[in-house]
Amino acid sequence: MIDVVQLASALIAAESVTPARGAVFDVLEAALWPLGFAVERFVAGEAPDGPVENLLATRGSGRHLAFAGHVDVVPPGPGWSAGAFEPVIADGLLRGRGAVDMKGAVAAFVAAAARVPATAGQLTLIITGDEEGPATYGTVALIDRMRARGLLPDLCLVGEPTSVAALGDMVKIGRRGSVNIWIDVPGRQGHVAYPHLADNPIPPLVAALVELDALVLDTGSDWFQPSNLEITDVTVGNPATNVIPAHASARLSIRFNDLHRGAELAARVEAIVRAHAPAAQVTARVSGEAFLTEPGALSALVSAAILEVTGRTAELSTTGGTSDARFLRALCPVVEFGLLNATMHKADEAVGLEDLAQLTAIYERVIERAFAG
Amino acid sequence: MIDVVQLASALIAAESVTPARGAVFDVLEAALWPLGFAVERFVAGEAPDGPVENLLATRGSGRHLAFAGHVDVVPPGPGWSAGAFEPVIADGLLRGRGAVDMKGAVAAFVAAAARVPATAGQLTLIITGDEEGPATYGTVALIDRMRARGLLPDLCLVGEPTSVAALGDMVKIGRRGSVNIWIDVPGRQGHVAYPHLADNPIPPLVAALVELDALVLDTGSDWFQPSNLEITDVTVGNPATNVIPAHASARLSIRFNDLHRGAELAARVEAIVRAHAPAAQVTARVSGEAFLTEPGALSALVSAAILEVTGRTAELSTTGGTSDARFLRALCPVVEFGLLNATMHKADEAVGLEDLAQLTAIYERVIERAFAG
Repeated sequence: MIDVVQLASALIAAESVTPARGAVFDVLEAALWPLGFAVERFVAGEAPDGPVENLLATRGSGRHLAFAGHVDVVPPGPGWSAGAFEPVIADGLLRGRGAVDMKGAVAAFVAAAARVPATAGQLTLIITGDEEGPATYGTVALIDRMRARGLLPDLCLVGEPTSVAALGDMVKIGRRGSVNIWIDVPGRQGHVAYPHLADNPIPPLVAALVELDALVLDTGSDWFQPSNLEITDVTVGNPATNVIPAHASARLSIRFNDLHRGAELAARVEAIVRAHAPAAQVTARVSGEAFLTEPGALSALVSAAILEVTGRTAELSTTGGTSDARFLRALCPVVEFGLLNATMHKADEAVGLEDLAQLTAIYERVIERAFAG
Repeated sequence: MIDVVQLASALIAAESVTPARGAVFDVLEAALWPLGFAVERFVAGEAPDGPVENLLATRGSGRHLAFAGHVDVVPPGPGWSAGAFEPVIADGLLRGRGAVDMKGAVAAFVAAAARVPATAGQLTLIITGDEEGPATYGTVALIDRMRARGLLPDLCLVGEPTSVAALGDMVKIGRRGSVNIWIDVPGRQGHVAYPHLADNPIPPLVAALVELDALVLDTGSDWFQPSNLEITDVTVGNPATNVIPAHASARLSIRFNDLHRGAELAARVEAIVRAHAPAAQVTARVSGEAFLTEPGALSALVSAAILEVTGRTAELSTTGGTSDARFLRALCPVVEFGLLNATMHKADEAVGLEDLAQLTAIYERVIERAFAG
């Protein structure tokens, strides 16, 4: 048997600000071998988005459940009561960077796996050292490796901290998509006293931004809130009070639901911008498409496990930011469930010891139910 | 008698990038004493807008004509055929920084004064070393000193380069006013995935800018073109694609005619901004109010002198940027007339030798006509 608090503490003590390599993977690997897992570690990518260390572990055969997560953490920042990488147990809490996001959940899943016979079915752990960073060579590289190995799970559980007020109150069954769009409007520089000799790029840009800000992309869908466009930056960079500038630029971020695709939204934005500024450059980068694992067998299975352990009925949600589930959905149905997210990315990040125990019990039941088919 | 080309060359050779002090004033002072002028030089102001050297010279009594100008120059910049401060005479031109803006005109006025008896009337030269810079301690300080000395001219001629295609084709009888306005809209920072927890300051700012850009301030007045508002900068400065920013700011420049006052325009802008963003900060700095010396005795006198020497009928205009005439207008009626402005502020700035001779003749006749009353 594995003590979940002890393993979570050991993971926290292995400092692993993103991108993580080395020690934190040593701790995890040492816990997995005795449980019968074949563990494969590899380093992917080059600067600036790499190199990144990843870990793939699998055991058993038959019905195949994957657990996905990360052992990198965001930087500690200021304001900690003690060292962010010195795990402290006090007042029923385990404190340290990564306690809920998401070393606690990784420890809970390993502890749950230890309670289930290795022969009961196939378990795979998909663990990256770069979820908090650019994520270019993390889960994406793991998925490539799984495909190359023929490791194709039936179901995937992502252990991100989805609980809001109490453990088990929320399960994520999808995520909005995300696209960032850069707009650059060229003009012709000149002196403000002679505007007819210049071409100010700011008026067409702000006119386009007003129209974009007024766009109603949709009113939401069955499982998603309405898509939302935010203007996140405007830059001209003209220090001279008497000069009409030569360029004006802006950046948008759209979080969108399953009624849209990133490229379609980018094209729509470009058309609006071009109507105001025909020579504008519009560049889009889609971070992830919206996806939904329709409520069904997988979400029912996780909800049933939560109900059994905590007595709570989980809300099925698609709110919040993106996660690596946006990549894993290409493999199989994905749901996300983990600890409380209240202290994630904050000083004195902490997890309840009782939550760790309950999460272990829930994950154990998820494994059993997944193997039961 | 004074050789205008020789004096202009000596002034150019005395390097005097704004703010000017020392040598260039020595050259001018040495030319003025023999003509009977009492010359007073003084240094005004402190960093960052000072110190600045100024020169006040006066002789005679009776009808009182002032000539205003500057001996500082803008930096040479690249692209000169020879040193910018090494005067070259070739192809009928005198080349060097300041040739037209405005050491050539200063030399022409001194040479004109040399041709007029010292007893014919009162002549005052108002010469600053900071017209091209902030102009905080230049002509303004000279005017203060003149008031303290009881030196109150009847008329003032500013020697800025007002000619466009040929010497004498344009006289300026007024200038537009200028006001710069800074707008800062506060918001509440947040994550783009949770816009309801944030307050994006960009949408109200760009909405206000669109409304401001559409303003028709007027359709021009008798002697002025329509007032014009330009948005000269927009700044958010948010590098993070997933963050809603806490502030958004912009800057406007309004060049306005005699139908407006700077403070009135600033108040109008503030009301429009506040309608979109009640918490916005709006700060205005009026560089100068619009002014007009109604066509009359002074402009007729200058036009007649131009016609007599060149055969050209000068257009009376209020176009272009600001000049120190905005300060001098408080003393007496002001008009501006000088050399061709085609090469001002450019590499290989140059004045025609024939233009220097003609300008001297025109200034001589202006002095005579002014003294004739």
